[in-house]
Amino acid sequence: MTYRPLFFITGLVLSKMAVFMYFPMILAFYTGTFGGMEFLLSIIITHLASIVFLYLGGEKQRSHLGVREMFLLTTGVWILASLFAALPFVFIEHISYSDAFFETMSGITTTGSTVLHGLDNMHHSILLWRSILQWLGGVGFIVMGVAILPFLNVGGMRLFQTESSDWSDKSSAKTRQVALDILLVYITLTIACYIGYRFAGMENFDAVNHAMTTISTGGYSTSDSSMGHFSNFAHWNAIIFMFLGGIPFLLMIRTMQQKSLTPLWQDAQIQGFAKLIIACTLSLTIYLVNSDQFSWLDALRLSMFNVVSVITTTGFGLDDFLTWGDFSIVVFAGLLFSGACSGSTSGGIKIFRFQIAFSLLQRQLMLLMHPHALFPQKYNNRKVSDEILRSLVAFILAYMATIAVSTLLLTAFGSEAMISLTASITAVSNVGPGLVPAIGPSGNFAGFPDASKWVLSIGMLMGRLEILTVAVMLTRHFWRR
Amino acid sequence: MTYRPLFFITGLVLSKMAVFMYFPMILAFYTGTFGGMEFLLSIIITHLASIVFLYLGGEKQRSHLGVREMFLLTTGVWILASLFAALPFVFIEHISYSDAFFETMSGITTTGSTVLHGLDNMHHSILLWRSILQWLGGVGFIVMGVAILPFLNVGGMRLFQTESSDWSDKSSAKTRQVALDILLVYITLTIACYIGYRFAGMENFDAVNHAMTTISTGGYSTSDSSMGHFSNFAHWNAIIFMFLGGIPFLLMIRTMQQKSLTPLWQDAQIQGFAKLIIACTLSLTIYLVNSDQFSWLDALRLSMFNVVSVITTTGFGLDDFLTWGDFSIVVFAGLLFSGACSGSTSGGIKIFRFQIAFSLLQRQLMLLMHPHALFPQKYNNRKVSDEILRSLVAFILAYMATIAVSTLLLTAFGSEAMISLTASITAVSNVGPGLVPAIGPSGNFAGFPDASKWVLSIGMLMGRLEILTVAVMLTRHFWRR
Ligand SMILES: [K+]
Ligand SMILES: [K+]
Repeated sequence: MTYRPLFFITGLVLSKMAVFMYFPMILAFYTGTFGGMEFLLSIIITHLASIVFLYLGGEKQRSHLGVREMFLLTTGVWILASLFAALPFVFIEHISYSDAFFETMSGITTTGSTVLHGLDNMHHSILLWRSILQWLGGVGFIVMGVAILPFLNVGGMRLFQTESSDWSDKSSAKTRQVALDILLVYITLTIACYIGYRFAGMENFDAVNHAMTTISTGGYSTSDSSMGHFSNFAHWNAIIFMFLGGIPFLLMIRTMQQKSLTPLWQDAQIQGFAKLIIACTLSLTIYLVNSDQFSWLDALRLSMFNVVSVITTTGFGLDDFLTWGDFSIVVFAGLLFSGACSGSTSGGIKIFRFQIAFSLLQRQLMLLMHPHALFPQKYNNRKVSDEILRSLVAFILAYMATIAVSTLLLTAFGSEAMISLTASITAVSNVGPGLVPAIGPSGNFAGFPDASKWVLSIGMLMGRLEILTVAVMLTRHFWRR
Repeated sequence: MTYRPLFFITGLVLSKMAVFMYFPMILAFYTGTFGGMEFLLSIIITHLASIVFLYLGGEKQRSHLGVREMFLLTTGVWILASLFAALPFVFIEHISYSDAFFETMSGITTTGSTVLHGLDNMHHSILLWRSILQWLGGVGFIVMGVAILPFLNVGGMRLFQTESSDWSDKSSAKTRQVALDILLVYITLTIACYIGYRFAGMENFDAVNHAMTTISTGGYSTSDSSMGHFSNFAHWNAIIFMFLGGIPFLLMIRTMQQKSLTPLWQDAQIQGFAKLIIACTLSLTIYLVNSDQFSWLDALRLSMFNVVSVITTTGFGLDDFLTWGDFSIVVFAGLLFSGACSGSTSGGIKIFRFQIAFSLLQRQLMLLMHPHALFPQKYNNRKVSDEILRSLVAFILAYMATIAVSTLLLTAFGSEAMISLTASITAVSNVGPGLVPAIGPSGNFAGFPDASKWVLSIGMLMGRLEILTVAVMLTRHFWRR
């Protein structure tokens, strides 16, 4: 194992990240609010670290990276970058480094759980930094999910392998082009979302932040009451852009290139995603109206907002759905695992895995009745090989195992069983809020002991990197010479 | 689809079941306690029904049964038999038919959840009938799990296919021999367990009942305080025979034939079963002692008893483990899914499926590092084919889906989320008690609305028949001509 590529890439990433720290610094200095000097200090430290890492990494070598180096790189860069991105939280909010790292990891993985109180009166510089972290994490992960993870065949993602996920030299130009296209779509959507929020009556600063945390399905807000602070029109705008954040960006690019919506309509995953949203929204709307809690229109808006928010793993809060009754709690508990489409900014198990698992089940039931018949399994007109199936199943198992281990550790560190369980699920699924009041849509993660915060941070990273990417590093074999 | 074999076999089963109703009737008449006439009435009705079914079934035809007929038979017999086995509960306890059917299904599937109050003062005839139901269900399922389910390849059980699970004519004599061997071992163990309980100071009647419900891993008791009513020595006796009820009966037969314990020690599933018990018992013991709740010896006994009780899906209560703290709740929540060995009387997902799933995961992690290497998957020196793997995965998915649907229905019928969830898990896993006080080790299922009781009854049956056996009947294709 050679660590030099890891150091080199980390150096590059840190130098880019320092550039993004300029925005909150400039904001603070320009508006005369708090945090300018603190961000300047963070920038200096990050730049220095960047230089050290670049030095350790040596000359940029276009040497061939081994598979294990790829895994180390994929995981390591996020951890090392977060170590420095956490600095402004320590300097400005005066919280412990554990808290700051948790908040950073929650941001960059687009989870959106928070340990901070009093968002409404918080320094704008730090609010902006939180949103920037989510925005960067969002686009970073799409590119990774398109260019790296299918190539590594993590969790059945080879199903989405395209020419652009080939890392051989001859196609690296093409990969770079796809990454640029994704970035372009991402920026365009962010701006569109910003305009929508402005039309919905949001202040400029709120609109900027929420645009960044909506399209990245991150869910950080500038208000303790989250989306409850804004107009109904803003809620519908959020629904649209959370939905867009949850569909595969490659398909959006193809749609634009072909100037036709057909690639979107015909995609099995998007169909499943839309059907799931409609089914859950309708049943919750009926449930809410039947139990006399809201009028039809309010029930529809609140149901759809929360359903889309949880399925896309955004985690924006709007009215505390924990108070809606037990039926809704169970629906949302199920949706916590769901996630939206692969190749989007959303976390979770993701729709395509449920669809393939469900078709496997149907196929096995048919096989029980006709043991000698042949039922080839397909998805989106592509054959689902046994290899992809095994890889997908391994993902789901590892997902559940990660949640189980995290829950056990959290209770061992003294938390209640249900808090531990839903905190673990929401962390690994990158959703944000849990399903018990303490950490619910209007709750906070500050109450956990430090050890639990580190466990949850690792859980968020594992969820973000499709579990197996990180799990492979937990095997002894990985570290063998 | 022809229904005549179903009617014929049901007729046979009902005539046998009526014979078992003689025992509580005789007990009541002999001791002059209540229930004799009521059992007589039940016997008459069941005998008449048996005759009707035999008439509908026509002559015993040795015609070849289609696969769909086999499934219909496998599920249908249990349901039809339960309809009549429920009669004594209606006549003697004056409960609704829904309650009586729930209690019967809970008995015959060896789940052990109850809707009855005041066991300590209950008529002995009905207590005995509950135990007999569990005892019959226990042995009935072992034979089915050995002779029918591997043949149908339900949930990866082809892994355990032996000559005795071949249903062709030439081997039916052999199958019958294996079934008789199993019955012999089962009776022997029941007697041994009875003797143990007597030595432990139990009254004769209590010892008879608990022997039947221990070896069948059923968990019905004659006292509201379950095993808490009896001596420490009785607890250790229960631990031993619950454990034995949880290991594959075919292996016990082979052990006796070969007069050597080697087949037991060398079995991967038994090894995993034992290791799981030891690991959970030790961590809970340490946890209980560290939190100053019990002395070492008490902590060991209580931990091991409850761990074995839940893993083997017996569900005997002994001290309310819900009060032990959140760490133990999470441990037991995990164990609720576990189940013991395949081919035993226990329910749940079962050890071998976890072992194969875990080895799949390990294999996939190795493949991530060495994409082109070959890692053949084996279990007990037998190759695990892709076919078995798919079937096993389909089982686990269907298991989770069944629990999810049941939970959703229960909340829709008005129960709390956590009650609905743990009631569904404990029903499908055939354990008995849930993990919230209302239905915990000292709780009761009477509070559910009738609709929920039917949902749970179906869940218990599905769990008992390895889910897919019943799920296949829920497809449209199954009922097509
Ligand atoms: K989120
Ligand atoms: K049981």
